[in-house]
Amino acid sequence: MAVIYDRVALIGLGLIASSMCHAIRRAGLAREIVGYARSAETRATAREIALCDRVTETAAEAVAEADLVVLCVPVGAMEAIAAEIGPHLKPGATLSDVGSVKRAVIDAVAPFVPAGVHFIPAHPLAGTEHSGPRAGFAELFDNRFCILVPVAGSDPAAVARLADLWRGIGSNVDEMDADHHDLVLAVTSHTPHLIAYTMVGVADELRRVTDSEVIKYSAAGFRDFTRIAASDPTMWRDVFLHNKDATLDILGRFTEELFALQRAIRLGDGDHLHAYFTRTRSIRRSIIEAGQDTDEPNFGRSKAKKT
Amino acid sequence: MAVIYDRVALIGLGLIASSMCHAIRRAGLAREIVGYARSAETRATAREIALCDRVTETAAEAVAEADLVVLCVPVGAMEAIAAEIGPHLKPGATLSDVGSVKRAVIDAVAPFVPAGVHFIPAHPLAGTEHSGPRAGFAELFDNRFCILVPVAGSDPAAVARLADLWRGIGSNVDEMDADHHDLVLAVTSHTPHLIAYTMVGVADELRRVTDSEVIKYSAAGFRDFTRIAASDPTMWRDVFLHNKDATLDILGRFTEELFALQRAIRLGDGDHLHAYFTRTRSIRRSIIEAGQDTDEPNFGRSKAKKT
Repeated sequence: MAVIYDRVALIGLGLIASSMCHAIRRAGLAREIVGYARSAETRATAREIALCDRVTETAAEAVAEADLVVLCVPVGAMEAIAAEIGPHLKPGATLSDVGSVKRAVIDAVAPFVPAGVHFIPAHPLAGTEHSGPRAGFAELFDNRFCILVPVAGSDPAAVARLADLWRGIGSNVDEMDADHHDLVLAVTSHTPHLIAYTMVGVADELRRVTDSEVIKYSAAGFRDFTRIAASDPTMWRDVFLHNKDATLDILGRFTEELFALQRAIRLGDGDHLHAYFTRTRSIRRSIIEAGQDTDEPNFGRSKAKKT
Repeated sequence: MAVIYDRVALIGLGLIASSMCHAIRRAGLAREIVGYARSAETRATAREIALCDRVTETAAEAVAEADLVVLCVPVGAMEAIAAEIGPHLKPGATLSDVGSVKRAVIDAVAPFVPAGVHFIPAHPLAGTEHSGPRAGFAELFDNRFCILVPVAGSDPAAVARLADLWRGIGSNVDEMDADHHDLVLAVTSHTPHLIAYTMVGVADELRRVTDSEVIKYSAAGFRDFTRIAASDPTMWRDVFLHNKDATLDILGRFTEELFALQRAIRLGDGDHLHAYFTRTRSIRRSIIEAGQDTDEPNFGRSKAKKT
C-alpha cells in the first residue's frame, strides 16, 4: 500500500497509539511517525522499544510539520492538549482523535482548531484490558470498526484520506453523528464496562466470601467481567464523566430490566426467566455471524491452554 | 491411570456429561460408560456420534449395575430423575450430580437415595456457552475446580474415589459446605450471569439504537456479555429459581454499588470513579496469577484470528 501521510504525530502513547504505530508501519502508510507522551516514563519506554521513529519532548514539537495528528489521550485530557498544540498545527493538516466519547471531545477540541486544519474526530472500536506503550500490537484494529464523526464543514477529501488510513491498518470504517455515536457506545461499551466494574467491586467487598475463593472459582463466569473491569481507570473515569447523559439513560433502563428479573426470581416465575434467556441467546448468534467474535467455546481459551 | 469405576452412568447428555464422557475415556477411568437422556433426539445424537459405550432407553436401565451414577440434568429436573432411578441403584454405588446449586439438589435428591448408596453432590466449575451432546470436549475440566459437597454420613472412601475421578479428568478438587457453595457461586457465577442476561436484554429492547448497530459495534465490550448470556436457558432458569436467596442477596449488594457509581457519574465525582476502577483492576491480576485465566489480550482472540 502507498504512503497516505508523510508525517503522522501520535499524542499520548498508550494501547491505541502504540497499536496504531505498529499497524501503520506494517502497512507502510506513513514516512515518519512521531510520538509524544506527557509522562517522561512513557516517553522513555517508547524510545527503549523504538515504538516511533522519533519521540519528542513537547507536544508542539511532535505536531510541527505533521500531516496527521491523532490525539490518543483520555477524553478528559483532550482540551488541554488541543490548547497546547493548536497554534503549532500545520495548515492543511488533519487533526483527529481516538476518544471513546465524541460530543464532549468535539466541544473540547474544536475551539482550538485553526482555520485551514481539518478536524475529523474518530473512534476505533478496539481495545484490550492492557494499557501503555508496550501493550500495542499491529493486529488490534483488524476487522474492527473505526467510526469517523465528521463535524460541520469537514473537507470530504480529508475525511476520505483518514478513512484510507484506518482501512489500511485493518479497520472497517463507518461514519456517524456524534450524539448517535455516544448513545450506541453507551449501550455497547460504556454501560457494560460500568456494570463489570460494579460486579467486580461487589465481589471484592464481600467479606463473607473471601477474596481467595472468588479468585479461585472465577472461571464460573466472573472472570469475564474482571477482564473488562481491568481496563485503564483514567480512560474510563473520563468516559463516564463525558458521556454522562447517555450512560445514565442506559443505566436507568438496565436497572428497570434487572428489577423485573429480580422480581421473577423472587416470585419463582420460571417462564419469564426462560423466555428472557432464550431471547438473549439469539443475539450472540448474530454477533458470531457478523464476524465480531469467535464461536470457539470460551473464546478459544481451551485451545490456548493446550499449546 | 487405572480404572476407578467399572461402570459409569451419565443421566442427561448435555455439555457437562458429554465432556465427562470424552475426559473419562481419555484417561481410561471407566470400563464402560452408559448414557441416558430424556429426549429421544439427544439419545439419537449421542448414538450417532458414539458418545458413550451404550445409550439406554430408560434411566433405570442406565443406572442398573452402575458403580457411579452422575445426574447431569438441570437443577429443576433433579427430583423427578432421582425418584425414577432411586429404586434401581446398586447397593454400594455412588450417586453424584453436577448441578450449579447444591442445597436445593440435596433437598431434592436425598429422600430418594436408598440405604447403602453413597450420595456425594458435586459441581464442576466449568462450562462454555454451547450446550448439547455435541458440545463436549475432553479438556473442559482441565485446571478447573470441581467442588465436592459431601452430606452428613458420606463415606470418606467413596468421597475419595469420586475425587480421584475428577482429578483423573483434569480437575482440582475442593470440598465445601452446601450453603457456602451456593453463596460463593452466587458471587462468582449466578449474579454475573443474570447481569449479563440483563445487559443483553437492554440492548435488544433499545429501539433508538437498532439491533444491527449493537451487533456491529459489539466488540467494544458488549460481546463478552453476550457470550455469558448465550448459556443454556433451562439450566440458568433453574439455577436462579433454586439459589434464590443467595442470588437476591448478592443482587441487592450489586444494585447498591451500582447506584453509588451512578451517583458519582451524575455528580461528576471523578475521584470516586477512578479509585473504584483502580481497585477492581487488581482483582484481574490475582485471577491471572491464580492460573484461572489467560493474560493474552482479549483472551487471545487476536491470536486465534491470525490462524
